[in-house]
Amino acid sequence: MALNLTQKIIKDHLVSGEMTPGSEIALRIDQTLTQDATGTMAYLQFEAIGLPRVRTELSVSYVDHNTLQMGFRNPDDHAYLRTVAAKYGIIFSPPGTGICHQLHLENFAKPGKTLVGSDSHTPTAGGVGAMAMGAGGLSVALAMAGEAYVIAMPKVVKVNLTGKLTGWATAKDVILKLLGMLTVKGGVGKVIEYAGPGVATLSVPERAVITNMGAELGATTSIFPSDEATKAFLTAMGRPEDFTPLAADPDATYDEVVEIDLSALTPMAAAPHMPDRAITIAELAGMKVDQACIGSCTNSSYADLMAVADILEGKRIDPATDLLIAPGSKQVLKMLAAKGRIDPLLDAGARILECACGPCIGMGGSPVSGGVSARTFNRNFEGRSGTQDAKVYLVSPQTAAVTALRGEFSDPATWGEAPAKATLPEGAPNIRHLFLYPKESGEDVEIRRGPNIAPLPPFTPLPDRIEAKVALKVGDDITTDHILPAGAQITALRSNIPAISEYIFSRVDAEFVPRIKKLGKGIILGGENYGQGSSREHAALGPRYLGVAAVVAKSMARIHRANLVNFGILPLLLVNASDYDRIPAGADISIDTKTIAPGAVSSITVEGVGPVAVTNDLTAKELETIRAGGLLNSVRQSRA
Amino acid sequence: MALNLTQKIIKDHLVSGEMTPGSEIALRIDQTLTQDATGTMAYLQFEAIGLPRVRTELSVSYVDHNTLQMGFRNPDDHAYLRTVAAKYGIIFSPPGTGICHQLHLENFAKPGKTLVGSDSHTPTAGGVGAMAMGAGGLSVALAMAGEAYVIAMPKVVKVNLTGKLTGWATAKDVILKLLGMLTVKGGVGKVIEYAGPGVATLSVPERAVITNMGAELGATTSIFPSDEATKAFLTAMGRPEDFTPLAADPDATYDEVVEIDLSALTPMAAAPHMPDRAITIAELAGMKVDQACIGSCTNSSYADLMAVADILEGKRIDPATDLLIAPGSKQVLKMLAAKGRIDPLLDAGARILECACGPCIGMGGSPVSGGVSARTFNRNFEGRSGTQDAKVYLVSPQTAAVTALRGEFSDPATWGEAPAKATLPEGAPNIRHLFLYPKESGEDVEIRRGPNIAPLPPFTPLPDRIEAKVALKVGDDITTDHILPAGAQITALRSNIPAISEYIFSRVDAEFVPRIKKLGKGIILGGENYGQGSSREHAALGPRYLGVAAVVAKSMARIHRANLVNFGILPLLLVNASDYDRIPAGADISIDTKTIAPGAVSSITVEGVGPVAVTNDLTAKELETIRAGGLLNSVRQSRA
Repeated sequence: MALNLTQKIIKDHLVSGEMTPGSEIALRIDQTLTQDATGTMAYLQFEAIGLPRVRTELSVSYVDHNTLQMGFRNPDDHAYLRTVAAKYGIIFSPPGTGICHQLHLENFAKPGKTLVGSDSHTPTAGGVGAMAMGAGGLSVALAMAGEAYVIAMPKVVKVNLTGKLTGWATAKDVILKLLGMLTVKGGVGKVIEYAGPGVATLSVPERAVITNMGAELGATTSIFPSDEATKAFLTAMGRPEDFTPLAADPDATYDEVVEIDLSALTPMAAAPHMPDRAITIAELAGMKVDQACIGSCTNSSYADLMAVADILEGKRIDPATDLLIAPGSKQVLKMLAAKGRIDPLLDAGARILECACGPCIGMGGSPVSGGVSARTFNRNFEGRSGTQDAKVYLVSPQTAAVTALRGEFSDPATWGEAPAKATLPEGAPNIRHLFLYPKESGEDVEIRRGPNIAPLPPFTPLPDRIEAKVALKVGDDITTDHILPAGAQITALRSNIPAISEYIFSRVDAEFVPRIKKLGKGIILGGENYGQGSSREHAALGPRYLGVAAVVAKSMARIHRANLVNFGILPLLLVNASDYDRIPAGADISIDTKTIAPGAVSSITVEGVGPVAVTNDLTAKELETIRAGGLLNSVRQSRA
Repeated sequence: MALNLTQKIIKDHLVSGEMTPGSEIALRIDQTLTQDATGTMAYLQFEAIGLPRVRTELSVSYVDHNTLQMGFRNPDDHAYLRTVAAKYGIIFSPPGTGICHQLHLENFAKPGKTLVGSDSHTPTAGGVGAMAMGAGGLSVALAMAGEAYVIAMPKVVKVNLTGKLTGWATAKDVILKLLGMLTVKGGVGKVIEYAGPGVATLSVPERAVITNMGAELGATTSIFPSDEATKAFLTAMGRPEDFTPLAADPDATYDEVVEIDLSALTPMAAAPHMPDRAITIAELAGMKVDQACIGSCTNSSYADLMAVADILEGKRIDPATDLLIAPGSKQVLKMLAAKGRIDPLLDAGARILECACGPCIGMGGSPVSGGVSARTFNRNFEGRSGTQDAKVYLVSPQTAAVTALRGEFSDPATWGEAPAKATLPEGAPNIRHLFLYPKESGEDVEIRRGPNIAPLPPFTPLPDRIEAKVALKVGDDITTDHILPAGAQITALRSNIPAISEYIFSRVDAEFVPRIKKLGKGIILGGENYGQGSSREHAALGPRYLGVAAVVAKSMARIHRANLVNFGILPLLLVNASDYDRIPAGADISIDTKTIAPGAVSSITVEGVGPVAVTNDLTAKELETIRAGGLLNSVRQSRA
């Protein structure tokens, strides 16, 4: 049977399941990556699994998010990451070496390999034909432990590229165009697979821009074939041996097909505050711009910055506009220096920041109040820049550079000739000596744990009977932000479940934490869509740590429900939504957990109310996971 | 009469007063500089004076402290600084251009000129023979308004340099040695003037290291003669026309003489937690070092970083040690790039940070918990690094580089041959096109004020009679930290007196602010040494804003007393300390201000107690200032 590229890689890695869209499949994972903001929890979870060494072909721990190191918590996290990597056989990339996705593309990504990373932009590696997926920390920990990665078999969308980019149109404009067509929900449950004659016209760094920002489509991942351009890239990176040709079969079929004519594209932007609000730059002409930022895992490659240097050369940015540039890696910076192309950036008045995520994740570089910022990044959510009322437009590096010179958006028809595409120099300098490689054995390595780093607390199996009070009764549409707020103060505690748990439901009910601590255990009673929003694991880990044994709700959001399962909290659904009103806060509830069966109705007893019918949407395996006290426990049991 | 160099410059700028040590002198100020952390208040004060244009020969506004721009407040401050500079005729140096003192030395400092800067390390410019003094924001604002700068005529200490630095000894080791000899209080009320045959052996960047860190002696300033080395430096900087030879008369006399034999010096450190804890590096051999940092206004010159590049070339830093390098200016970075000397830094594993103050002021780069950090900076106060239990050793760039390679301090006898001193290249690139120069007129410039920037509140003249309650009664040794705490949250409000005033006495009595707001006005009753500690203006501005009309205390600290005068608060001293016990918190006090005369005893009436004798140590001019409602008002009156 003819297969598309996605199906080929999945078939090669299929551990269990059927390749029919929507059905559960388990994939063997070849590589993992983590970044520091999510990595500490992933490694704490890996430590909790209890293996002496990772079981992947390759695992890399990058530090690129909290490189500012304001106060002891971040540097302590980094020292933990460095030592835990040495102990368990993981390559460590120190802060300042570069952005995880740029570095992984340059140094480790391989065609046809599976990669799971604890960062949503992991699909960048799809630029060389890897099947690269973003996931939560526990999923990465399990992949490092050699466990298969479980997803729903995705639909595959073919994006048929024809023609060739001309003038000022760039790879960024391709993905902005696609986002405008498909929207930020358009890729959910799908892999975006690029094909057609236009593919050959794009270099790997250009392809990586497109796969990177496929994350904004909500896609499982995005992928390009591996071809001559891939070979050229891997050769320039000093690793021609990593090349394998890979493509869909000629008669492969797809679930959907989208057509993009590269020749027809012009410079675009995503308008505030969503990456799919695609608009042409020409439409923005005349709008003053306070700041331009170039960098991030989307647009910080050598070719990107060479184009920027060409545009800036001999000119001075507008005095009222700031220009911040963060190269994607030390390799990029070294290549620029070797060509004498740092000078044009400095002489134009650009600020050169460290090779890190920087302003893209709100680590500095916030715009002025009410300011307009043109950024080559991938997200422009309201407030993400650190300035609540700033207006962020996502653009290409070329557009950002021209805009910084003019101090405003302008019609590309007035920009003159576009700079030539830079090709990677032969014998490009590599920086692989800057990674710290694990020794043959990690036995002697002592893991460095700062005072803010706490081991993952052990969780007990589900008791046969839960006897607990409703510790909190909440209404509909409770988000994970309600359960555990974000913000610098709380986020700095992410390596410390006991400490971060102090903030559970803190903005909903300040008495919740003292109350459940006094009770020792509790049940949450929720309304509709309980746990919607972000995927943060801590919104399940924290409640579990505080003693939440079950959540009983009218309905639950998908990812949070999965997190409850992963950390051993029983997610029960009211059969009759009207029972919600009959159960008061503080009520004593008794649950005979032995009577619960997958997908079946059972009964809980509410004091003063009587029996209340509940059901669940758990698979047998999920119920087993909960009975074990969570996924870490069940994995340990299955290995014992 | 034969004069030393200090006396010559003072004589040339003397507006009033006698040149006898300790007596009040007023100096004409040629140049001013500000940095962003203190600059916003200085310019708000300048605006309050009401002049259309600065009256100095040259005023420069640098942005180098809060360049991270986390959130809108800092970028808004920077936009304010940029526009206020354009309006009032000030040169603006955008964030990322470099560190104020390095940039001022490279571009603007001139032999024989007076310079007042709102940063304690302003004496750096003494490296080219300028008389450069650190001061509060209001002093800088007044200097910009053309007012004379009033200080006590300093004693002059001659540091007689003989011999020549050899091996690994550097300029940093000279000042560390001197700090060990004189202590951090050794320079109070004095100018440190360098002389002797050793002077000619030191380049201007070396001299600037020494004058920079003279601030740690507590000195009024430090100064070197202007000679052939000065001429060479100014020529390399592309401004030979700024050179003037300057030296003490051959038979000049000094108040003290200190001898230093440069030939006898070896690498040194200042041990935690004080810059005068001088110790040789050899004594520290074997101590593990977690982090080395190179940069700051003390040690971030081209010669410093060239030496570092030579040491690092072809080597890799210890895997357990981080190395952070922040060049002092874009000029330094451009010179390094032109010589291909960025590569050795990157290849060794160093992190290259933006050209700014960075970790020196705790803006990132905090060490790990309990970590040891070797830093080329000028201060190692406990907690200043952002990590309370870190141990910071102040060292030369050469020592930092070797230490980063070895991962520990080691005996310089084992370091091999020291790198050659780099001399500035002929035709060094300059970056003066990156400064924003004011146009002929600033009339059209609209000042940009973010929502956190509030104009300086107007203050009313002293009423003839103060009728107010004791709003707060405090004990002995109240510091300015008690009056207004530091910390990131509060410091971000420094452009906003109404907002920052909410924190006045917040850690002493949380009810103080609501109480005095309700009362509308009040009097503070203090014990001994009221207002000791830092010079922060806000500790007087905030109380004044809240309605504090007078402070009655047993005794007062000198600088805070001056700040009270500057902002129109009456500082009264109890004639009988025992009266302190007789006056309860909340007592109604009546003060007939017309009866107060300079240095004379008068009487205040305390309800239920009766008359209480008070005195003051005010000069006639100071009393006039208070009656006017503060220095800004009195300056405006005298100009009206």
